[in-house]
Amino acid sequence: MTDTPGGLEQLSCPLPLPHVERIVLGHGSGGRLMHDLIARRFLPAFDNEALRAGDDAAVVEPAPGVRLALSTDAHVVTPLFFPGGDIGRLAVCGTVNDVAMKGATPLFLTAGFVLEEGLPTETLDRVVASMAAAAAEAGVAVVAGDTKVVERGKADGLYITTAGLGLLRDGPAIGGAMARDGDEVLVSGPLGDHGIAVLSARGQLGFTADIESDVAPLNRLVARVLQASDQVRVLRDPTRGGLATTLNEIARQSGVAVLVDEAAVPVRPAVAAACEMLGFDPLYVANEGKMVVVVGAEGAAAVLEAMRGCRYGEGARRIGSVQGGPAGRVLMRTAFGSTRVIDVLAGELLPRIC
Amino acid sequence: MTDTPGGLEQLSCPLPLPHVERIVLGHGSGGRLMHDLIARRFLPAFDNEALRAGDDAAVVEPAPGVRLALSTDAHVVTPLFFPGGDIGRLAVCGTVNDVAMKGATPLFLTAGFVLEEGLPTETLDRVVASMAAAAAEAGVAVVAGDTKVVERGKADGLYITTAGLGLLRDGPAIGGAMARDGDEVLVSGPLGDHGIAVLSARGQLGFTADIESDVAPLNRLVARVLQASDQVRVLRDPTRGGLATTLNEIARQSGVAVLVDEAAVPVRPAVAAACEMLGFDPLYVANEGKMVVVVGAEGAAAVLEAMRGCRYGEGARRIGSVQGGPAGRVLMRTAFGSTRVIDVLAGELLPRIC
Repeated sequence: MTDTPGGLEQLSCPLPLPHVERIVLGHGSGGRLMHDLIARRFLPAFDNEALRAGDDAAVVEPAPGVRLALSTDAHVVTPLFFPGGDIGRLAVCGTVNDVAMKGATPLFLTAGFVLEEGLPTETLDRVVASMAAAAAEAGVAVVAGDTKVVERGKADGLYITTAGLGLLRDGPAIGGAMARDGDEVLVSGPLGDHGIAVLSARGQLGFTADIESDVAPLNRLVARVLQASDQVRVLRDPTRGGLATTLNEIARQSGVAVLVDEAAVPVRPAVAAACEMLGFDPLYVANEGKMVVVVGAEGAAAVLEAMRGCRYGEGARRIGSVQGGPAGRVLMRTAFGSTRVIDVLAGELLPRIC
Repeated sequence: MTDTPGGLEQLSCPLPLPHVERIVLGHGSGGRLMHDLIARRFLPAFDNEALRAGDDAAVVEPAPGVRLALSTDAHVVTPLFFPGGDIGRLAVCGTVNDVAMKGATPLFLTAGFVLEEGLPTETLDRVVASMAAAAAEAGVAVVAGDTKVVERGKADGLYITTAGLGLLRDGPAIGGAMARDGDEVLVSGPLGDHGIAVLSARGQLGFTADIESDVAPLNRLVARVLQASDQVRVLRDPTRGGLATTLNEIARQSGVAVLVDEAAVPVRPAVAAACEMLGFDPLYVANEGKMVVVVGAEGAAAVLEAMRGCRYGEGARRIGSVQGGPAGRVLMRTAFGSTRVIDVLAGELLPRIC
């Protein structure tokens, strides 16, 4: 399942989750409840190799030798417009990025709209224009769509589900299960901007923060990274659940430990301040225009330089490394020199963030 | 845009539509308001050849010589369960059929879920099991998914948007623009079952009708039809907007007239009775397991025989023919020998039918 899982059939929850009789907001969080939903309900029903791989996009082969990446993302963000973006840009970038994170070149998108009766057509026009601009920026075409309308009160303005198709490159496989002892872990820039920008737009900060969402198509950044080195093992965008959840997915899929240097994790001062006030850890806050790169040590410097030369990678940093074990663990070396375990997001941090 | 349009850039509305400031239920009807929404708002923004073709699925070529059909459909049917089907079976079959209607072999699906907080997990399990069964019946794999949760009152149980990918066959192109003077028009069975079954499940009939939805995957039926003749020009499933709207799309895309023999149009007595009571014309009622075939006259008998040998084509009938003009018109020869114009659906017949 895109955007979330990681080697889901072997995802071991440290604490068994209680039997859940009803869907709660946490099931959409990208964290443990969602992993549980996927592992218990979706995977057994739809069982197939592509789904089980648990990456951001499925690899499919519709004809011999033609390997494609296929992905989907539903978007329900509120409000529809926020500093730096809107649901339209998000719907295009989210799926473009999921396809790109398999190392594929995104080419085509589909878009399914659920519109609420009474939605101003001017709002729809703005969203559609934003989607078109984002698609043009990413170099993808929206080739098919569908529109449904539900009665007032049965949606929240509009929801958009996109699917994306991309062409896989030749070269070493890229995926969450490819991280190896000794690899380096990089991020493309400061974390938490998207989540805090959306909260700010909701008026939930209690103050005005000058923070814009980072929502952006990362496919050109990915192309440069893959040109820079053939040692790239994992690409993943830390969306819902944030960096912490993404690194846990990689650690579990690859059966390795990820060691993160707290002092190296880039967070803007305004985001750090907002998180401190709200009691959030920026490691769990959603990003929509950042990526994690796991790369063999020999390739790390070249990849870092390549990222820094790109519009959406200027703030790239090395934040840690991969170790052989303890398998499935993410450990953080704090500023005080101690080490603590970083787990996946447990509950619901920010509902309807994307 | 899938499921709906037809040569949309040249779609001429006999009556100019008023300026609309807000989305109304009719924008999801499959009829004129939806065509207008697509032609005015989506097509200009996303303009590309695949979209402009206006068929049920887009034809894309991600690598030289590899021609694929890509489609999407959002599903918001209420109630979630109805005689003969449910939203899960609908979400799989709707997209499988859109891909199949380009003459392609559906292979892979994605599924994006929007879940309402409070949805019983048992309901989700039933829907997912139904999707899995329909996918198995169609021979497709659900390879990627995404789940979002919205607060109580911000959805209606659950919505499912699927996208589908299929491999195009070699052979003559199939699409709404391929109908020619002299072709025959066939349907695969009786019309209106889905719409009336859903109405019945809503208790809106005022009586209990023994009518089941026809929701079914038609890809195997399509394969048999294409084996039977190389004269197949158009395949289309008459979903929202019904047979009348589908034939209008074909007439406009191909620049031909379609002449329908009223007495030949198959409608079950129970559906006809329900329609008469409700003041509906079964020609406008949605189907989810039927298809229209336009085929060269020499191939019609073989296609009809092939359809009748299939589970979902037993009730196949010849219902009319294609004429050179008047271009873009659908004409019906009534039982009394007169001829009347059949237009696209004008307003909203049955909201949230699929």
